[in-house]
Amino acid sequence: MQFHLEGFRPGDPHVAQASPTTPPHTDAVPAEVDVLVVGSGPAGLTLAAQLAGFPDIRTCLVEQKDGPLQLGQADGIACRTMEMFEAFGFSERVLKEACWINEVTFWKPDERQPDRIVRHGRVQDTEDGLSEFPHVVLNQARVHDFYLDVMRNAPTRLQPHYARRFIDLAVDAGAGDFPVTVRLERSDGGRVREEIVKARYVVGCDGARSAVRKAIGRQLVGDSANQAWGVMDVLAVTDFPDIRYKAAIQSAQGNLLVIPREGGYLVRLYVEMDKLGDEERVSHRGITLDKLIDTARRVLHPYALDVKEVPWWSVYEIGQRICDKYDDVPAEEVESRLPRVFIAGDACHTHSPKAGQGMNFSMQDTFNLGWKLAAVLRGRSAPALLHTYSLERQVVAQQLIDFDREWAKMFSDRAKQGAGDAGEAGGVDPKEFQRYFEQHARFTAGVGTHYAPSLVTGLSTHQHLASGFVIGMRFHSAPVLRVSDARPVHLGHAGKADGRWRLYAFGGANDLSNREQGVIALCRFLQEQPASPVRRFTPDGHDIDAVFDLRVVFQQPHHAVAIESLPPLLLPRKGGYGLRDYEKVFAPDLRQGPDVFDLRGIDRRQGALVVVRPDQYIAHVLPLEARQELSDFFSRFMRPA
Amino acid sequence: MQFHLEGFRPGDPHVAQASPTTPPHTDAVPAEVDVLVVGSGPAGLTLAAQLAGFPDIRTCLVEQKDGPLQLGQADGIACRTMEMFEAFGFSERVLKEACWINEVTFWKPDERQPDRIVRHGRVQDTEDGLSEFPHVVLNQARVHDFYLDVMRNAPTRLQPHYARRFIDLAVDAGAGDFPVTVRLERSDGGRVREEIVKARYVVGCDGARSAVRKAIGRQLVGDSANQAWGVMDVLAVTDFPDIRYKAAIQSAQGNLLVIPREGGYLVRLYVEMDKLGDEERVSHRGITLDKLIDTARRVLHPYALDVKEVPWWSVYEIGQRICDKYDDVPAEEVESRLPRVFIAGDACHTHSPKAGQGMNFSMQDTFNLGWKLAAVLRGRSAPALLHTYSLERQVVAQQLIDFDREWAKMFSDRAKQGAGDAGEAGGVDPKEFQRYFEQHARFTAGVGTHYAPSLVTGLSTHQHLASGFVIGMRFHSAPVLRVSDARPVHLGHAGKADGRWRLYAFGGANDLSNREQGVIALCRFLQEQPASPVRRFTPDGHDIDAVFDLRVVFQQPHHAVAIESLPPLLLPRKGGYGLRDYEKVFAPDLRQGPDVFDLRGIDRRQGALVVVRPDQYIAHVLPLEARQELSDFFSRFMRPA
Repeated sequence: MQFHLEGFRPGDPHVAQASPTTPPHTDAVPAEVDVLVVGSGPAGLTLAAQLAGFPDIRTCLVEQKDGPLQLGQADGIACRTMEMFEAFGFSERVLKEACWINEVTFWKPDERQPDRIVRHGRVQDTEDGLSEFPHVVLNQARVHDFYLDVMRNAPTRLQPHYARRFIDLAVDAGAGDFPVTVRLERSDGGRVREEIVKARYVVGCDGARSAVRKAIGRQLVGDSANQAWGVMDVLAVTDFPDIRYKAAIQSAQGNLLVIPREGGYLVRLYVEMDKLGDEERVSHRGITLDKLIDTARRVLHPYALDVKEVPWWSVYEIGQRICDKYDDVPAEEVESRLPRVFIAGDACHTHSPKAGQGMNFSMQDTFNLGWKLAAVLRGRSAPALLHTYSLERQVVAQQLIDFDREWAKMFSDRAKQGAGDAGEAGGVDPKEFQRYFEQHARFTAGVGTHYAPSLVTGLSTHQHLASGFVIGMRFHSAPVLRVSDARPVHLGHAGKADGRWRLYAFGGANDLSNREQGVIALCRFLQEQPASPVRRFTPDGHDIDAVFDLRVVFQQPHHAVAIESLPPLLLPRKGGYGLRDYEKVFAPDLRQGPDVFDLRGIDRRQGALVVVRPDQYIAHVLPLEARQELSDFFSRFMRPA
Repeated sequence: MQFHLEGFRPGDPHVAQASPTTPPHTDAVPAEVDVLVVGSGPAGLTLAAQLAGFPDIRTCLVEQKDGPLQLGQADGIACRTMEMFEAFGFSERVLKEACWINEVTFWKPDERQPDRIVRHGRVQDTEDGLSEFPHVVLNQARVHDFYLDVMRNAPTRLQPHYARRFIDLAVDAGAGDFPVTVRLERSDGGRVREEIVKARYVVGCDGARSAVRKAIGRQLVGDSANQAWGVMDVLAVTDFPDIRYKAAIQSAQGNLLVIPREGGYLVRLYVEMDKLGDEERVSHRGITLDKLIDTARRVLHPYALDVKEVPWWSVYEIGQRICDKYDDVPAEEVESRLPRVFIAGDACHTHSPKAGQGMNFSMQDTFNLGWKLAAVLRGRSAPALLHTYSLERQVVAQQLIDFDREWAKMFSDRAKQGAGDAGEAGGVDPKEFQRYFEQHARFTAGVGTHYAPSLVTGLSTHQHLASGFVIGMRFHSAPVLRVSDARPVHLGHAGKADGRWRLYAFGGANDLSNREQGVIALCRFLQEQPASPVRRFTPDGHDIDAVFDLRVVFQQPHHAVAIESLPPLLLPRKGGYGLRDYEKVFAPDLRQGPDVFDLRGIDRRQGALVVVRPDQYIAHVLPLEARQELSDFFSRFMRPA
């Protein structure tokens, strides 16, 4: 953490200085805002928390419920989501409270006594080196709490406006600065009133029954697997030995998924219930909690399950549905019209919960959208950038849906019950099930997302210079040593959710001594040349790293790097006092494990420049000398300061 | 973290359910308390935070200042202190905010140009494997904040009473339950009133000028080095390359110590100032901030120092002073009288700040005292236990003083300035300085404390069974895997600041299969036999691990341990629902590094039982079969429930 740049301030450094220009939170919603976020679920909160960091953006978050969520639906937190939480500054809180999923075990009917289940496999949940963070499980309500803290501590001191139901909206492209008019219904102690908000942009994060989605005439399209499932969080006593493992159980009595939960005692059970008829909805079945518990007991036989408390339960049908586009611009008008209304999260895609993807994917939607909205609103990018949100997120959601459908089908199908049943229609070989699980672990971990080349994602011409930093995929952090103080740190944790671009420059073989090319020459270009994106796009009066945060990794051991000989851009003077920032330069951490150059396949002779977007995705890999390509890339979507 | 044992509770699991029997905090101090803590510095807060966890103990913390500390004197946090912070549940907050000290660099006059300094050495600050925590630096005020949060979130919701000056106390041994009467002076908006508190015990954590110490007729004895030092926290611009390292500079112009601080910009400088005459106090010198800055500049030559802001500065003289006893019982009356008043922290020992020991040592004082007071007040131990506080802490403080005196002297002495001056009186060879530093790093890290055998510390008869867990020293944590969920955890982090004893049983070679001896037989003894300390000392109606928290480490890989075959004591049923606790059994973590059995020298054939006190110090090492010795050990100071 960096703080005290503008002078020593006592107290909690997480609490930013309040912006003097932000109006205080009022009971009524503001009349005009830059962004109206509808819905304070994971998608809405990720967006609001991101925007709350910009005092020059007026954000309003409205939520239909009366207050914060107390206990939640979703619970799975993928590695990739943890990486994003690190960017928001609360990963350590989640790590501490959450249940870690370390291994998954697989159970099937005992071949000799098919009414009994036996363990037939174990697999490590997350492959080594996939992420610096584990896969964890935590009540969604706590994730909300952490985001609300980020908002409350941000310079804008953003708070949600609760008890607001979205009624409808109208977009009038000719209406000037605030073209979207939104009608809300406010419930206030029995009294119901209408409120009007005018906004530059509206983002519907209002769930699977999204009213914002309806208002822009879009719909979720997909199918249902006609299979009812029950889910319950229980405090129970059992002799089932894997109750603290994620355990996938296929039994002759149906299927069950065990998800251990935070705190060491709570467990979530997903229980396969009735097959539904065509067009039949799960609500018609009247499935009770007692029936869920009874079914779970039968699946777990011969193990006992004595349920003591059920804080939350639900029944649902598996369905994978998706919107064809995530904004209000019809596909055929993309060239001529700019989006003003977006949808995100469950409003545009729904999944089976068992792959643990719903909440994670939703948050990545708005992490993608947030920086783009901020860049456009702050005048740093042309509004055409906003088209890339639907473009990028819809495609990867479709991939997820396809995976999810296959996975859910496989999960619902009966296990083969011994060799005699090998030919049974619909049967899934338990081994195949486990293999499928392992293959798709990267997708489940959230690190499988791969954006295609676009306005903000470059071509793979120079990918070979850094083969482990794949253009279009998330920047995969690696351990390094900070040169100024020999502290072991994670390189990727430089990437905070602050809307800034990161330029990770990996030094070539001679880059410490050679001042005419490589990293040092790049620094000179970036600091001095008119064509430099740093010079072109950083507004006057801002710190030199306000838009582009350059970090350099030399391949030499840290003692070989003499701070006094570094170019000024690597010890930039910042803030009112012009204090030096000492956190820009790194070396391999040779004591803790593999060298980052080996780990990520950096070309040791030439080095490489890895350009990373504000949402931690790799936009480009370029040679350190590719001045023109670097300038051109940013000129495509950035606006000169 | 474990929570939801008594049913699901939404919200932050750090916030314990409020005790229904604790009276709410009132504006006035309570008339009668179990423990009155005087002073809310590190020692007082450690004690209050510990006691706040016990709803059956009434604690009152009074502080002379009007409110919490905003910016502090001390800043060094030793590895050992971090281990204790983990026990209090806030180590992750310190790790995140603090500056990590990774390496120390040494500077001396350039032999050819003695008015310029040059770097002549670097050393890793903390040797590998010394602790799972780093050595860090953080404003003392933040440490206070974290403790205040622990108190606020504890079942007793303890808050300090500010603006209370301790006037005096009287102990009347015949006065019944509350033998100590304390007079306080309360300042309240200009109004001054007297308050009287009657207490069972009073602990003076009121600093070097302790009024409690004076009230019990004790005094600090020691000497002064007649050397003035200045200390200042600065935001500055410099080209001194090691400004983010701990850097010890010996120059022809005097000496300087650089301590980088949290947030990446702040730095603390210790500056050697004037030699003082005999009996002269530093306050007579009128040393100004300008003089401090000027001296620092001259020492740093040829490097520049442009000071922008000085949030805090002070001048002091080096002095090592100590009390001969830390309670109100004269040495000759120990056999016949029980202590009622204690002193802790700076009230009984003062040091040179440069070894970074003051705050750390003070907190360890009251971590030692806290569990003892709690055990006696809750009727679990005989009051004679309280004698061990002064006995243990005074001796180790004297050791620290001796080290500190030598270190400070060495630091103050001039560096030799080249070969020609090798014989100069008082000169210290820079190499020798560095060597001394390295040798004493364990002491500085706070892990050198070694309590002698006593009522609560056993003899080393069986030490060879676990040579790396030294009786009388702190339990040195090691990585293990939790069997119930394959989570990598730190074994020592089972030890929370909750007043419980930990029994770490390391299994012998055949302990998984052999149920007649080793770990499984030990469990049966502990659960079933009348001589078992668990049965004798655990009150009825409490969880079976309420007094003794047994943890077992098998030497087999975790997949070899079948949960279903473990004895009930290792899956104890707890709380109102009788839920199973799955966090008692571990195996070596073979993926992450060395096997805990190798790392800590456990006898693989016999195994070992390591008995750990509530303050994380090792009380005993015994064979798993040593039933009688185990019972006898606890019978010495525990009272049957």
